[in-house]
Parts: sequence; structure tokens; C-alpha cells
Amino acid sequence: MIIVLKPDATEAEVAQIIRKIESFGLTAHVSKGTERTIIGAIGDERVLQERPLEAFPFVEKVLPVLKPYKLASREFKPEGSVVKVNGVLVGGRRVVVMAGPCAVEGREVLLETARSVRAAGGHILRGGAYKPRTSPYTFQGLGEEGLKFLAEARRETGLPIVTELMDTREASVVYEYADLIQIGARNMQNFKLLKEVGACRKPILLKRGMSSTVKELLLAAEYIMSEGNYDVILCERGIRTFEDATRNTLDLSVVPLIKRLSHLPVIVDPSHGTGKWDLVPPMALAAVAAGADGLMVEVHPRPEEALSDGPQALLPMTFAKLMGDLGKVAAAVGRTL
Amino acid sequence: MIIVLKPDATEAEVAQIIRKIESFGLTAHVSKGTERTIIGAIGDERVLQERPLEAFPFVEKVLPVLKPYKLASREFKPEGSVVKVNGVLVGGRRVVVMAGPCAVEGREVLLETARSVRAAGGHILRGGAYKPRTSPYTFQGLGEEGLKFLAEARRETGLPIVTELMDTREASVVYEYADLIQIGARNMQNFKLLKEVGACRKPILLKRGMSSTVKELLLAAEYIMSEGNYDVILCERGIRTFEDATRNTLDLSVVPLIKRLSHLPVIVDPSHGTGKWDLVPPMALAAVAAGADGLMVEVHPRPEEALSDGPQALLPMTFAKLMGDLGKVAAAVGRTL
Amino acid sequence: MIIVLKPDATEAEVAQIIRKIESFGLTAHVSKGTERTIIGAIGDERVLQERPLEAFPFVEKVLPVLKPYKLASREFKPEGSVVKVNGVLVGGRRVVVMAGPCAVEGREVLLETARSVRAAGGHILRGGAYKPRTSPYTFQGLGEEGLKFLAEARRETGLPIVTELMDTREASVVYEYADLIQIGARNMQNFKLLKEVGACRKPILLKRGMSSTVKELLLAAEYIMSEGNYDVILCERGIRTFEDATRNTLDLSVVPLIKRLSHLPVIVDPSHGTGKWDLVPPMALAAVAAGADGLMVEVHPRPEEALSDGPQALLPMTFAKLMGDLGKVAAAVGRTL
Amino acid sequence: MIIVLKPDATEAEVAQIIRKIESFGLTAHVSKGTERTIIGAIGDERVLQERPLEAFPFVEKVLPVLKPYKLASREFKPEGSVVKVNGVLVGGRRVVVMAGPCAVEGREVLLETARSVRAAGGHILRGGAYKPRTSPYTFQGLGEEGLKFLAEARRETGLPIVTELMDTREASVVYEYADLIQIGARNMQNFKLLKEVGACRKPILLKRGMSSTVKELLLAAEYIMSEGNYDVILCERGIRTFEDATRNTLDLSVVPLIKRLSHLPVIVDPSHGTGKWDLVPPMALAAVAAGADGLMVEVHPRPEEALSDGPQALLPMTFAKLMGDLGKVAAAVGRTL
Repeated sequence: MIIVLKPDATEAEVAQIIRKIESFGLTAHVSKGTERTIIGAIGDERVLQERPLEAFPFVEKVLPVLKPYKLASREFKPEGSVVKVNGVLVGGRRVVVMAGPCAVEGREVLLETARSVRAAGGHILRGGAYKPRTSPYTFQGLGEEGLKFLAEARRETGLPIVTELMDTREASVVYEYADLIQIGARNMQNFKLLKEVGACRKPILLKRGMSSTVKELLLAAEYIMSEGNYDVILCERGIRTFEDATRNTLDLSVVPLIKRLSHLPVIVDPSHGTGKWDLVPPMALAAVAAGADGLMVEVHPRPEEALSDGPQALLPMTFAKLMGDLGKVAAAVGRTL
Repeated sequence: MIIVLKPDATEAEVAQIIRKIESFGLTAHVSKGTERTIIGAIGDERVLQERPLEAFPFVEKVLPVLKPYKLASREFKPEGSVVKVNGVLVGGRRVVVMAGPCAVEGREVLLETARSVRAAGGHILRGGAYKPRTSPYTFQGLGEEGLKFLAEARRETGLPIVTELMDTREASVVYEYADLIQIGARNMQNFKLLKEVGACRKPILLKRGMSSTVKELLLAAEYIMSEGNYDVILCERGIRTFEDATRNTLDLSVVPLIKRLSHLPVIVDPSHGTGKWDLVPPMALAAVAAGADGLMVEVHPRPEEALSDGPQALLPMTFAKLMGDLGKVAAAVGRTL
Repeated sequence: MIIVLKPDATEAEVAQIIRKIESFGLTAHVSKGTERTIIGAIGDERVLQERPLEAFPFVEKVLPVLKPYKLASREFKPEGSVVKVNGVLVGGRRVVVMAGPCAVEGREVLLETARSVRAAGGHILRGGAYKPRTSPYTFQGLGEEGLKFLAEARRETGLPIVTELMDTREASVVYEYADLIQIGARNMQNFKLLKEVGACRKPILLKRGMSSTVKELLLAAEYIMSEGNYDVILCERGIRTFEDATRNTLDLSVVPLIKRLSHLPVIVDPSHGTGKWDLVPPMALAAVAAGADGLMVEVHPRPEEALSDGPQALLPMTFAKLMGDLGKVAAAVGRTL
Repeated sequence: MIIVLKPDATEAEVAQIIRKIESFGLTAHVSKGTERTIIGAIGDERVLQERPLEAFPFVEKVLPVLKPYKLASREFKPEGSVVKVNGVLVGGRRVVVMAGPCAVEGREVLLETARSVRAAGGHILRGGAYKPRTSPYTFQGLGEEGLKFLAEARRETGLPIVTELMDTREASVVYEYADLIQIGARNMQNFKLLKEVGACRKPILLKRGMSSTVKELLLAAEYIMSEGNYDVILCERGIRTFEDATRNTLDLSVVPLIKRLSHLPVIVDPSHGTGKWDLVPPMALAAVAAGADGLMVEVHPRPEEALSDGPQALLPMTFAKLMGDLGKVAAAVGRTL
């Protein structure tokens, strides 16, 4: 950690900051420049992470040197992690496609969708039983009944299921049914929920918050991992920007960036990322070309009747066409589908 | 709701969309323009809020006309709401100042801070017992012990207390101690938590999410109100933008905007809004000039030792000076302190 | 255009707005809803584009229906445009790669770079002679001398050249040398410059401003086209967001979006888009997978000595490797390189 | 400047970076930490501003210590600057109000507006003769004729005039009429234009670009000052964010922030900042409470007929009311109007 002092900092103030650094068990390294004195804190700066040093009026700024996350970092595990979801490997050579409706709306429509996902070659079935909705007046999900429909679809198709957990009180019921527990974008910094799933023995799909930096995403993963659960898959799903022609701005550059910073697998959700079904196929191809380990795509047999996010759902036939195209791009970048 | 069709939409497609609108109990109003046909859906468009209409391939866009929130809207209650917090009125002529440490760190330091808040004329004591922290390796709050210290500070100073609730499982313990329940920015769209506090009989302080629009903030308030709890105070605390010279970008224009859109009281947190203690006083004055009903300000007797957010905490003497200045600006805009 | 009136608008006010609409030669279409009256303005709403209607105190909001650009729209020219740059076609089946140094720094280093671009199969040579730099104390470009070096490199390698024009006063000298005139991101809304290049007979490369919406980008293209120059190529180069781990956020979803909205070719600049050389290859592949008509990539033989943007420049050998990979992805999406 | 090396950097690489630093005339200061080696470059780091050091593959990141601007910095001139605009002082105790129409639309309407600005106590008349407009099909300003009308209004009312310069080719004609030359937000990084006005002898009003950081704003001021013109007034006018309920997000916290970083006066434009006339008065009051040296406010006698930005213009009587309220807030913060 580097502490930059203001130009008029006195000797006594320099001494004060040195004592402070040493009180945390670190070594202070003073460097007097032509305009300012800067002090390096040598050692594990994570003990200084609270950074109250900036509260000293004679400190101009504090520059961290080390990354604040450890278990999630590439340095902790130089080879990439592979997470197993009920037999499906995420993070290996195969690009994994998770597809299905935004919300589980009923038994028949879910089974119909699951069959089409299966037929097209999808690997994991997605579907929300508990739905975070912006308005209290819209469909909030079927709850446990939805989980049961998902389990039935799994029995019939053999596809593992991924579904969202929104509330610590519902953790045990979701654990009972899901193969992969999704933490949604709005809950990426719901730290109690992160700790809760950190203590379970199921793999976690952690979606990036809509205004979260990559550093914060990795710290959220660190919350889960620090409780003992290392099976975390990250998911880019678009961030909030000024551009309103798309629902979010899909930030694909985080795919190679996360690969550099972390060993965790990373997938992309182009459905929420764009909010428009006709932008989903090209962005799905782009995600794979950028190095994503998988995709999460919304599919619905009748999008205009969907109770949630219809405008971004693919028809089964569009999804099937996409799967074909994905195979070609995956092969072009040395992967399989 | 206005549905704009693509230029090449056919008569059959127009008929299809009309049937759809009528199936929701609304009336369709067709208007053929020179380039496009547009269709108005007359009636309570909230039933169409899911907007699956955009999923029709011949629909170009859907424009909502009505606001999606109702109970939180100014139209629902043209006069402003006043929320009572253990005897302190928020939303009236008096500007209410909530102050105290970011986190409750210990009994002595809390009491010391509470006394200085009281002495300077603050109205409500703030302090976090459960702390949402970006990193799992930093101080996470004292939990119920912190709540007990807050209750003791209330007994001694007579100041009501506001503190954050992070997890539905901790609701009952927080209800037991707090006078005003804070929902933090990261939980503004934790819908299960919103419903939980909507069912309690305590006033709620709802902070704007760091990437939430005003519409989403009012919909979050609507979640609480739709469960029966109308005592909601809104709080602007800065949004995420590209500017990195401040911790967040304090969006004061939402103060008069919310006053126009909603009847709920609105306060401002310039401590999180700026992240720098020396920007807090001018922004606190600006908030009152813009029409805020109150402020939430962090105060700490030794910011450089704070376990959380020290760089943005005011010293008690700076806070006391600010209170004097606030009184003058409040008077200039026809209010009291 | 749809005009939504406030709930308490009077009959006289409705009549006033109708007269206003008719005064512009449009037809007013009144629709009384259950809560609000809305009025449609039928005809070419572009005459109402200034939207002073929102200034009426009884108007709640104004919703445009038509796109504000015409010449740049896909409807104006349903088949895609192909722009010819001194023999190289942009917008056809072939993906066009523009590569070279950020700035022309000297004769030798430019020729060396141009040869490596040529050898790797690049199609157009890029290089800035006039450089927009954030600080006045950094290298500002070689000016006309730089243009002469570019011309020499063109003679030797046969590659057409693209270079930036920053000032209307320098238009004639840049026209003399360049094959493709670049308007940089910071000048996307330098309207005088847009009109100037709209009047020239050279193709234009228009980069998206760092906080410009797609609509504004297309309106900037419209400025150029409305002066008679239809040879416009659009370029996504990253937008400004809160994420600071990359220089900008490369918004690849605008590639398929622009393809839907406009007939103009669109290319992607992953060098400025990410600011980090190791993110450039994956994002270049992603851009092609998303449907980009070309790329603009920075190449420098010794990035650590570059006078501008070294951290985002590829070494010639990395660029050559990328060209090979691009060929595979281009083929996977039905294109050539 | 601090250079953080990657964990696996070799001794030879450390030596290479030291040689590089010394080749710029700086001293290298090596500090081996427990995980990484960091190197400080002691001396005027501005010579390293191009930062090609990040292009070395063994460098993890480069952290600048000093501010990149000098003439604009508070350290360069600890007391605040006062800029004289044809007799009106900006930056002193008096809060200066610049008001008038967005665009000069005609002689009569301008004179009418100027008289009302004068009568209400405004200090400087604003009005655009050259207008940057998003669409080429909207009113582009009256050009020199508009400047003549402004000069006539100045003769009649005695108010100095501020107007925008958009193109280096029009500099001499604008210099002939204007008392204060405005550089608009879209041209904040039109560096040729900045250099042009840096060479003139008139004061400059520099508006913050809509996605510019404060650092970039101060560097744009530095461009002007480095050419010899020190009479620069900065203006906050709102930035681009995800919030679409206001035209821009007015970032008032930059007012006290700029006061800390720079000696230049800073004013606020709440008209463009909010885009809605009813939000202008509260935000104007807030700006003065935050410490702004002045305001720029749009006034139009008939906003619904304005050719540009009518929805954000105040009626003369609303403006007059605002001036009264501003006087009270100014007094409350120790200033006059």
C-alpha cells in the first residue's frame, strides 16, 4: 500500500503515519520525492484494507498495491478451475449452454421448453421459481411448486437445473431441488446470502451486479469461497450505462479480463445483457469468441405470452439455429460445444 | 400504453395486437400514421406491465404512459407525507439531521459520539450493527451487541436510533431495538427484505441503490407500501458514474424530482455520496437548499481509527460547525433545523 | 409523436396543444384514457423535433415515435452500404482490418510497422498525424510531416491510409493525403467538422463518442450525409462507464443493433475499447463474431517506446497471430478476411 | 510515479525498468515487498505521463502520484482567481448570474429577454449564435447576425455577453462581439479550439464535457492556460449517467472538489444539468449553497415557442422569483448576489 502525503506534511506527521503502519505489523518504507513524501507499507496490506489512513488530514491519497481478494485470484490457483454441475463440467474445453424460460410459469410450458432445449443440445436447464421483479404488481414466481416442475423436467430430460435463490430463509428448499444455485445480479452484494451459500455444498452461479466492478464481483466470489465453497461460476449479464437502446450494456471484455485475474469459470448471459431477442444470437457468438466458458440464454415457446422478459426470449427454433452457429465459432477458437 | 408497430406490419398483425390488448380488459385505439401504425391501450395499463407485447416480431416498441407505481405517487396523496420516528417528524418544516458513526464499534466510542451529536443539535442517532462490507475480510459489525449499545445511547441522549437491516432472518431482533429501519443501497432491490419490512410497524429509511433510477426507487417503496407499511422515507446517497474523484456522484436533482413525483419525505446522505469528509459540509448545505427533508451524516471522534468509512466521517467539531451553517441555509429556504 | 397531458389538463389546454400541432402541418389525434388524455401528432414528426411542446406546463411528457435520422436509417436503404476506400471494400463479405501505430512517430518506425501490417495481411494502414491528447504536455503529432510519411508507407506497401482530422482549418491538407478520414470520438459532435467532411469526396470513418448513444451516433452520421457524402463507416471504440479495470467499456452489442437500425458499415476498435493489449485479441475475435465489418487495431514494434497509447498496442507477431485466428472466426460466421 | 511489477518479474526486468526511469532524468527507488517489487520514480513524473511503462509485459500497473495539470492547480496559485468579464468579477464574494435564451432566435425576443434578465438583477446575458444541435435538421443558430443582436442588447442593457464558439474558423468574428467566450460541453476536448482560445485575450467559460472527469476538465483548462490565457471560468452542466428522468445528472459535488484542486472560479448550469424548468430553481439554490461562484440559467419569455431547449427555460417571472431566493441563500453562506 502506498500512502501519498500532502506537500505540506510535517516530519511529525510522517512519523505518525509510520507508527500507524507499524502498529499493523507492517514495515514502512519512506521515499521523499521532489514535491511529496510517499510511504510504502510493506507486508500483507489486506490488514490495512479499511484504509482509515485517508482520514488523516495530511494524507492526500492511498493507493492499494495488492488485490483485495485472494482465494478467487489467479495467483491462488494458476490453472483454471472446473466446476461440476451434476455431471456437467463448466470451465473445461466444452462451452456449456444453460437455457430455458426466465420464469417457471407452469408445468406444461416448462416441460415443452425443456424438451426443446434438450433437443437442440443445451446442457443445463434454467428457470426461475423465485423471481426478483422491479414492480410488486408483476408475477413473482411459483415458489416451491416451480422447483418441483424443474425437478420433473430434469427427470424427463436429464438436464441439471439452475435456479435462483433470493432469500436466506428459502435456502434449504432451493438446495433440495437445484443443481446449481444462482445468485442474481441484484443480490451480488447481499452479503448474508453470499455467506449462506458459501456454507452449502452446491455449486454457485454468481451474476455480476448491474453496477459492480470486476473487483467487486471477485470480492463477492471471495465471500462465498471464504466460507468454504470453492465451486463458483461467474456470469457477466450486462451493466448499467447511459445507453438506453439496449436493456443493459453487455461488457464482454470482462471475460478475458476475469480469465487473467481469476481461476474461476465465467459465462455470459446475452439475454439480460441486451434485452432484445434479435441481439442475443450475435452476442452469444461473440461471448464464445471472447473466451466464455458458457452461456445462459432465455428460451420460450411463445415469448409474447411469457410472464417475464418475453422480449428477450428466443423461440426454440431460433435457439436450435444458434446452437448450430455456436458449434462453428467454438471450433474456431479451439473449443467444443 | 402506446404500441408502435413496424412499418411493414400487416392488417392481420394489427388485429392480433388488438385482440391481445382486449384480452387484458383494455380498449385498443388504432391510429394509422404516415409511416407507422400506433395503437393505444386505454385503461389501467399496469396489467400490461410485463410488456410481452414487445416480443411480437412486428412490434417496434412499447411506450408506457402511466407511472408503474401508485401508492408512492404524488397523485395518490397530493399533500406530502410526514413520517414519525419515535417522536421526530420527518417531512415537515423542520430539516431532520441523522448523525453518528458508520458502524457501532464499541460502547464507549458510540456513547461519546452520541453525546456530541446530541450536543450539536442532531435529531436522530445513526449507527450500523450489521454492516454490508465489500470485502469478507473487513469488520462486519457487532450484531445484536451493537444494537444494545445503540439502545443505551438512546436512553442516555433521548435520540431515536436508525440502523440497518440486512437479512430477513434478523428482522425481529432489529425491530426490537430500532426506531427507524434502514434498507441499504445494496438491498434496495432485495425484494424479500422489502416485503418483510412492509409487514412491520416501524418506519423505513429506504436508500437509493447505486445504479437505481428514481422510478426503481419509487417501485421499491411501492413494494414496502403494498404490504401495508406507508411510513417510508427515501434517501439519496450517490450513484455510480464514471467520475472517480468522488466515491459516488451525489444526485441532488432527485430531491426536487421526487417531491414532484411522490408524497414521501426524502433525505440526503452526503457522506456516502462523496466519500470525502471535506466535501460533506458543502453538499449538506446544498441538499437543504435543494429541498431535502433531512440529512444523514457520519460523525466519528477519531476518523483515522474508524473501522469503516473513516475518510468520510466528520469530527464532532466539524459537525457542530455544520449544524450552525445548516440553520442559516434552512432559514433561507423557509425551513427550520 | 405522442403528447401525454397531465391528469388535470383542461379542455382549453387540449385545444391549445391541438392548434399547436396543426400549426406545424400535422394532424392531431386525441385519445382520452381513464387517467390521462394523450394526443398523437400524425405526419412527419421531425418538424416537431425541437419538442418545445414539453415546455407547456400541462404536458407531462412527449414520446417520439419516428427515428430522428433518415438518410442513415436502414429503411432509407434496406440493403447494406458498401464503402470503397481506395479499392478496399468495407461493408461486404470481407472483414477489413485497419492496423498501425496510434500516432505516426517517425519515418522509420512507421515504415517498419506498415510492412508488418502488410505482411500479416492487414488491409488499411492507420496512423495519427494530428493527435487529440488529454494533456497539453504530451506528444501532439507530427502534423503534415506525419501525413507525408503515411503517403510514403502507402506507396511502399500499397495499403490505403486512414488518419484523423481534428480541425476544419486542416481539412484540405488531410484530404490531400488520406484515403479514409477519421473523425475521432471526441469530435463526434463537433458539428462544424461533420459538415466540413460532409462536403468532401472522401469516405469518412466516424467513431462513436465516449458517452454517445447509438441514436446520437446515427445523427452524427446524418450530419455528414445531409451534406451529400454518403460514404460513412461507423466505429464502436468503447464507452465510458463506472468500470475502471478497462480503459473503456467496449459495447459490442451496438454492432448487431446498428445493423438493424442502419445500412452503414460498422467496425470495432478493441485497442481503445479495452486499453490493454492482452484483451485486444479476444475482443477482436468477439467483434467479428458479433458481425462487425472490420477492425481497427493498434500495432507498434516497441510498445514500451510508443509516444501514445503503448499499453494497448500489439506487437507485430501478436498481430500476425491474431490475423490467423480472425480468419477462422470470420469463416465460422460466413465471412472472409 | 509508482510502478508495480508482476510477482514473477526477474532481476533483469527490474534493472530494465530502472534504466528506463533514469533515461528520463528521474531517480528510481526500489522497494521489494513480500509479494511484489514496486519502484518509485522520483522527480517530475510528468515526463513519464505517456506511461509507456505499462506496455512492459512484466509491469502490473502504473500509479501516478502527482496531478497532471500544473497551471490550473490550487498549488500553483493558493488564493482563488478572479476573472473579470467586461467589468463583472467572477470568483469573488458576489455570486454572478448569467441568464438569457438558449439560442438567439431574433432581435425582438432577445431584447425582450435581455430586459427581463436585467430587471431581475442578472449580471451577464447569455445567448447562442452558433448552436451545436444533435440533429442536422434543427435550428442551427443565426450566426453573425445573432452576435449583432447580442451586441445591441448589451448596448441597451449594459450587460456583458457570453456566447459559444464552435469552430476555429469563426474565432475572430466571435472575439469581435463577445465579452466571455463559451466552449461548450461537446467541445471540451476539441483541443485545437482550446489552443485557439488560449491565444486570445478574452476570458473563457469552459463547460465540463458530459462524460469528462474533473481531472480531464482541469487538463482542458490547462490547454488554454498553457497558451497564455489564464482567465478561465469552469462550468459544471451535468454528466451522462443511467438516470433518464433528468436530461443529465448535475454533479454539484465537483464545486467544492474543484475549489480544493484548482484556483479557477466555477459556476453551475442547472438548465442543461436537469433539462426541466421546474428543477432549475432548487438546483440553482443548491449550487450556491455548495459554493458555486455563479450560475448560468436559461430564460425565455415563451418557452413553448423556443427554437432550442424550451423545456428547460424559465419564464422571466420565475427567474425574477429565483433571483430573490438566491439572494437569501447567498447571504446564508456568506456571499452576495
